[in-house]
Amino acid sequence: MGRCSLLLLLLLIAFLTPGAANPVSPSLRAPSSLPWSTSFRSRPTITLKYSIRYIQQKMDSSPLSHQRSPKLKCFHVDHFGFNIDRTFKQRYLIADNYWKEDGGSILFYTGNEGDIIWFCNNTGFMWDIAEEMKAMLVFAEHRYYGESLPFGADSFSDSRHLNFLTTEQALADFAKLIRYLKRTIPGARNQPVIALGGSYGGMLAAWFRMKYPHLVVGALASSAPIWQFNDLVPCDIFMKIVTTDFSQSGPNCSESIRRSWDAINRLAKKGPGLRWLSEALHLCTPLTKSQDVQRLKDWISETWVNVAMVDYPYESNFLQPLPAWPVKVVCQYFKYSNVPDTVMVQNIFQALNVYYNYSGQAKCLNVSETATSSLGVLGWSYQACTEMVMPTCSDGVDDMFEPHSWNMKEYSDDCFKQWGVRPRPSWIPTMYGGKNISSHTNIIFSNGELDPWSGGGVTKDITDTLLAIVIPNGAHHLDLRASNALDPVSVQLTRSLEVKYMKQWISDFYVRLRKMN
Amino acid sequence: MGRCSLLLLLLLIAFLTPGAANPVSPSLRAPSSLPWSTSFRSRPTITLKYSIRYIQQKMDSSPLSHQRSPKLKCFHVDHFGFNIDRTFKQRYLIADNYWKEDGGSILFYTGNEGDIIWFCNNTGFMWDIAEEMKAMLVFAEHRYYGESLPFGADSFSDSRHLNFLTTEQALADFAKLIRYLKRTIPGARNQPVIALGGSYGGMLAAWFRMKYPHLVVGALASSAPIWQFNDLVPCDIFMKIVTTDFSQSGPNCSESIRRSWDAINRLAKKGPGLRWLSEALHLCTPLTKSQDVQRLKDWISETWVNVAMVDYPYESNFLQPLPAWPVKVVCQYFKYSNVPDTVMVQNIFQALNVYYNYSGQAKCLNVSETATSSLGVLGWSYQACTEMVMPTCSDGVDDMFEPHSWNMKEYSDDCFKQWGVRPRPSWIPTMYGGKNISSHTNIIFSNGELDPWSGGGVTKDITDTLLAIVIPNGAHHLDLRASNALDPVSVQLTRSLEVKYMKQWISDFYVRLRKMN
Repeated sequence: MGRCSLLLLLLLIAFLTPGAANPVSPSLRAPSSLPWSTSFRSRPTITLKYSIRYIQQKMDSSPLSHQRSPKLKCFHVDHFGFNIDRTFKQRYLIADNYWKEDGGSILFYTGNEGDIIWFCNNTGFMWDIAEEMKAMLVFAEHRYYGESLPFGADSFSDSRHLNFLTTEQALADFAKLIRYLKRTIPGARNQPVIALGGSYGGMLAAWFRMKYPHLVVGALASSAPIWQFNDLVPCDIFMKIVTTDFSQSGPNCSESIRRSWDAINRLAKKGPGLRWLSEALHLCTPLTKSQDVQRLKDWISETWVNVAMVDYPYESNFLQPLPAWPVKVVCQYFKYSNVPDTVMVQNIFQALNVYYNYSGQAKCLNVSETATSSLGVLGWSYQACTEMVMPTCSDGVDDMFEPHSWNMKEYSDDCFKQWGVRPRPSWIPTMYGGKNISSHTNIIFSNGELDPWSGGGVTKDITDTLLAIVIPNGAHHLDLRASNALDPVSVQLTRSLEVKYMKQWISDFYVRLRKMN
Repeated sequence: MGRCSLLLLLLLIAFLTPGAANPVSPSLRAPSSLPWSTSFRSRPTITLKYSIRYIQQKMDSSPLSHQRSPKLKCFHVDHFGFNIDRTFKQRYLIADNYWKEDGGSILFYTGNEGDIIWFCNNTGFMWDIAEEMKAMLVFAEHRYYGESLPFGADSFSDSRHLNFLTTEQALADFAKLIRYLKRTIPGARNQPVIALGGSYGGMLAAWFRMKYPHLVVGALASSAPIWQFNDLVPCDIFMKIVTTDFSQSGPNCSESIRRSWDAINRLAKKGPGLRWLSEALHLCTPLTKSQDVQRLKDWISETWVNVAMVDYPYESNFLQPLPAWPVKVVCQYFKYSNVPDTVMVQNIFQALNVYYNYSGQAKCLNVSETATSSLGVLGWSYQACTEMVMPTCSDGVDDMFEPHSWNMKEYSDDCFKQWGVRPRPSWIPTMYGGKNISSHTNIIFSNGELDPWSGGGVTKDITDTLLAIVIPNGAHHLDLRASNALDPVSVQLTRSLEVKYMKQWISDFYVRLRKMN
């Protein structure tokens, strides 16, 4: 399997290929393709107003005054070393329509692996609560994503240029930006800041509160699998949850899918099997060799994973437009597990069409695509090969996928081949505490029960200020999406609770502030 | 003033030179020359037993078993980047004579800017309480000091090799080491670790608890000026405290010293003044040009600072052997402020002899030395030019020194000339929270009231778990020194209190552990 195509397949596919080159984290496709779908139908008329800012200055020189006009903001490329004294422009967005200097707050989105405008446009929750929280909204772009490329076009050219793409550097960027905003925006200095993020951005929000509690009074970490590292959770938990989603969404659904792999295998072995499969699935590029079959199955598996993650209760526009409760719709084609192989494949085709052709416009299915987005594929691939090593596996018994074990050695070798670096799988728990995080405070961990990533998330309260909320019928960070008439009560309650806690943190902040003055 | 001689003078001298090249932090001489004096007289017969360890492994490979024989322990040179995959040997010492697996603890010394054996031999407090705490003692050497040189002889050759000398990397070393020890020493896994350190090591202990609270249950930060950064405290506070020490140690003492600078200036301007001064002060190398006079005054000033820091109540052997209460002894020679200039200089000579010739063996005084020790001068100079920017200043009115303002621009330019790097003075507060650290827990900040560094330290309780202890009659981290019959009651009480708190942290740890099991 070619490395380039692996990348185009957006990471997840690799781990479903036992023994195949596995250069990028299996599990990473998912957080990197977070279902930040825009619910255009539920929010057709609202135009989100924000300023795009690039304010130019070196952080340690005297501050410039806060300006409305686009300026360039430069950060040191390396916060943790002094040899390279280069800076780069970090992009961030600000919306202050509802912000109040008196008793207000700053909601700070800790950007993840993609274009920040895309995240901004798709984090309706922050926009929905801005007025109630008297909040300034800030969306900070993660370095090496979107326009925030430290070395421009060369940013991904080799491990030397990529060396500054780490969570620690990203958090330091956020810290510098918050200090800069407080210093330069009149009225912002004595305001509480709350970090918010989803998926990888949710991890960053939580870690930011852990590492920089002097800069944010709390964090809302939505669907943040901070424990999907090392051996903190079983590696098979992710695929088990996907399987459960399918099991619960239609009779025989997961069982049919479990059997579908062998159906494909059997057909592929027959003389004209590859051609038949290519035609039955309407593939844009026909299968020509046996490796293509593995790639096909990986692509299909990844599709089911994606559908599970974005199993939202209303029509949404993720990578493709999707119906409400898409897993249920997919499962309509998997009602019968004991069907001839050819029928099974035709059912797979129908099911794939739910995800890839809901609009009815697709002329063929492209095995090298499962996501087209503002996500930064190269950047995430590198992160998966360094810090963000999130083991996943499947056994085909407790889940509906073909068996695939987690092989750290192979993973590391593939990373070395691809990027010239070797992952340090135990680094994230060393740095961020693993399961031993009880000394921290004021973090909400919200998880959708349907979300495969909830398996690596915090789903039980740790202390009375490290809170877990599980959202029945919730998919991947549903709570951060804009309010929708079809939202289940569970997510409405979740959002209310989140607002309540955040208001408490803000109120506590102002009490402390008054005591100090 | 030559740069090399500045370094030999161990950093502090520079800031007393208005307008002169100032490549290294004024204030840094002091913490880098911490008075870890061994009180040999009070502890003549005890031999400290420890193992020197260098255990070889890469941190992320499978653990080797814990071995008594010296092995090599390798850490990644860069914890925060993956491009350089080199490792280095970090040295650490272990003493487990009193360690108990059952209900025991691990006291972890966060090594500062010097040879770890020197610190180990001079941190008597940890040895004194080991049995009572059933404690294993670990002394971890700070990278770029002692034998823990990441690039061997090249470690200080340029800013590229020095790029990994930061507090963040040092803390990450400690984190890795603790995880390694817990993984490999049978019985250590479920034991509470407490970080301890003095001066810069005290800052590291506090910061380690702040950043890695999952690895240590608390920290004892003795004489740790974590607020001597940016504008967190007035830059003149350090010299004011030195002055107060002298004012309180003898009539007219500080006033005499304040007047002594002009006496030197006046004499130096006379025809044979330089020669006369050289002879009167018994200088090993005669003064020959006007710049030498500034250098002389800086050296004298630094001497008074040093004497203030090590104003211990008993004879001690710091850089030179010293009498008990050395400031008082020095002040005996400054009883009269209105004396002829020549008499003043003769008095200075007598006073300098207290510090440089208590043994009576010195044949002349060497202006290029105020400390001879196991301290890492080059490393600290670089740290002072990057992260550890600790402003100090004097005005000659509220203190007894010649006026010297803090000039960041000049400081930065000098750093650039010396190391090719520029300091980032606001980085430490951004990283470690400045005065906004109330969300952390379980740190004891102890400060000697006589210690000039107490001005940048935490001297009032912040919360009921962020505790400050001020030790009347205490000099620089007196509490970490071995118990001595001449210790004032204040330091005895301090140590009791510290043990009480540490025992509480340990007890809380075991309560939590039992709850979990």
